[in-house]
Amino acid sequence: MLYIIGLGLGDEKDITLRGLEAVKKSQKVYMEAYTSLLSFGLSADGLSNLEKFYGKPIILADREMVEEKAGDMIDEAIDNDVAFLVVGDPFGATTHSDLVVRAKTLGVKVEVVHNASVMNAVGICGLQLYHYGETVSIPFFTETWRPDSFYEKIKKNRSLGLHTLCLLDIRVKEPTFESLCRGGKKQYEPPRYMSVNTAIEQLLEVEQKHGDSVYGEDTQCVGFARLGSEDQTIVAGTMKQLESVDFGAPLHCLVIVGETHPVEEEMLEFYKYKSGN
Amino acid sequence: MLYIIGLGLGDEKDITLRGLEAVKKSQKVYMEAYTSLLSFGLSADGLSNLEKFYGKPIILADREMVEEKAGDMIDEAIDNDVAFLVVGDPFGATTHSDLVVRAKTLGVKVEVVHNASVMNAVGICGLQLYHYGETVSIPFFTETWRPDSFYEKIKKNRSLGLHTLCLLDIRVKEPTFESLCRGGKKQYEPPRYMSVNTAIEQLLEVEQKHGDSVYGEDTQCVGFARLGSEDQTIVAGTMKQLESVDFGAPLHCLVIVGETHPVEEEMLEFYKYKSGN
Repeated sequence: MLYIIGLGLGDEKDITLRGLEAVKKSQKVYMEAYTSLLSFGLSADGLSNLEKFYGKPIILADREMVEEKAGDMIDEAIDNDVAFLVVGDPFGATTHSDLVVRAKTLGVKVEVVHNASVMNAVGICGLQLYHYGETVSIPFFTETWRPDSFYEKIKKNRSLGLHTLCLLDIRVKEPTFESLCRGGKKQYEPPRYMSVNTAIEQLLEVEQKHGDSVYGEDTQCVGFARLGSEDQTIVAGTMKQLESVDFGAPLHCLVIVGETHPVEEEMLEFYKYKSGN
Repeated sequence: MLYIIGLGLGDEKDITLRGLEAVKKSQKVYMEAYTSLLSFGLSADGLSNLEKFYGKPIILADREMVEEKAGDMIDEAIDNDVAFLVVGDPFGATTHSDLVVRAKTLGVKVEVVHNASVMNAVGICGLQLYHYGETVSIPFFTETWRPDSFYEKIKKNRSLGLHTLCLLDIRVKEPTFESLCRGGKKQYEPPRYMSVNTAIEQLLEVEQKHGDSVYGEDTQCVGFARLGSEDQTIVAGTMKQLESVDFGAPLHCLVIVGETHPVEEEMLEFYKYKSGN
């Protein structure tokens, strides 16, 4: 049996009892490292906390491993209980469909243990999840690569009065350009997580380029940092206001507010930007 | 402190450790009865299981109470720890913004414990949560009341190639027409939960009425029953196919499939309708 277990968004206490039970009975426990070290403390300590908590070792599976070596994990799951831990929900922002397809194709039973993910936890700001359109991803712009397909999607959402959840880029274990050219042992860039500030900067740049007045400095947004953690930060304000707010440590995400109902507005009031934020 | 705690979608084991901790330290525990008795066993037994599990009594708060008597709950939370349990996530399909607004306005601290909700758990069928448009609700049609505002919303989602999550009507503790006319003690209709079959029937009726070819008998859908429970049922097929599938006990929901990517299709394959479903 392959258990794919959502850990939720905060720390080790956000696993469900069902999830913990599955971890306890698994002979091997893997953990997706793509975003997970971050949520569990930005350091390897988070992992060892988790190991102490579960009373068993955890094998860290970085993105390369999940993609390249999923076969081993699946093989082990034929005769053993294997747990694969992911931050949030297994089918939240990052989906693990590939893994499920490969396992099921080989006849391995898969059980999914759900949890909160950014896709539903953003509901806490009071904007109804009903009224979101397509979710967009904002990638880090480089000198030569400034993809802006999110602009058209935001345009469509806004034309329908819908809110837009913007997921912000995470760069973890990116090989350095030099090591890619040189070949041999890969070297990695330090991890980068896009801030709300950078996202807004890029969004405004793209608006300026296209000029369709899809949004602007005065457009209402909600910025989130460390959503679902005890020290989460949520601030509602215009793009211009949020551009200068220090949201602190990652992960960040951003919602561009569409048409609102009175109950939604009442909730947003509690998170309103105050100068000095 | 008022804790608003998501219980997830299955049974008592789907609470998070953080949620359970909050329940244990609360002097009073309320539970939303709108959908909850259902998920926890369709009978009052589910509740007493939960009481045994928590080792403390639970006060069942039906919809009237949540709406009318939330004030008492909030008052108690000024000097005590009070837990309010909801099925799914506190800001999932049913939002509890009202309660949060009232509590915060009175200066009561509110802590939300997130969990999975139908809004993110539908991801399990393989359709990416990114690619959903606005969520719609399908109400039970009556002789005289056949509201179909969902049709325009589905139309917009489909014109953008997006998937549509349809939440299906739940009628719990509806006063009987007679008792409303007569006054005095209210009597209630037996609870009703819309099935995937009824939803499709109504959807097709509305398509026939409007005739914009937004969808039809051959439109691909995914039907869900008891999502997140151990005995969940998920079947992918055309409206015509799903119309005759027996999905069993409630709750049901339905996704109308938009444009799909190959990975999404691979996942849907596992849930494909087979005659005899």
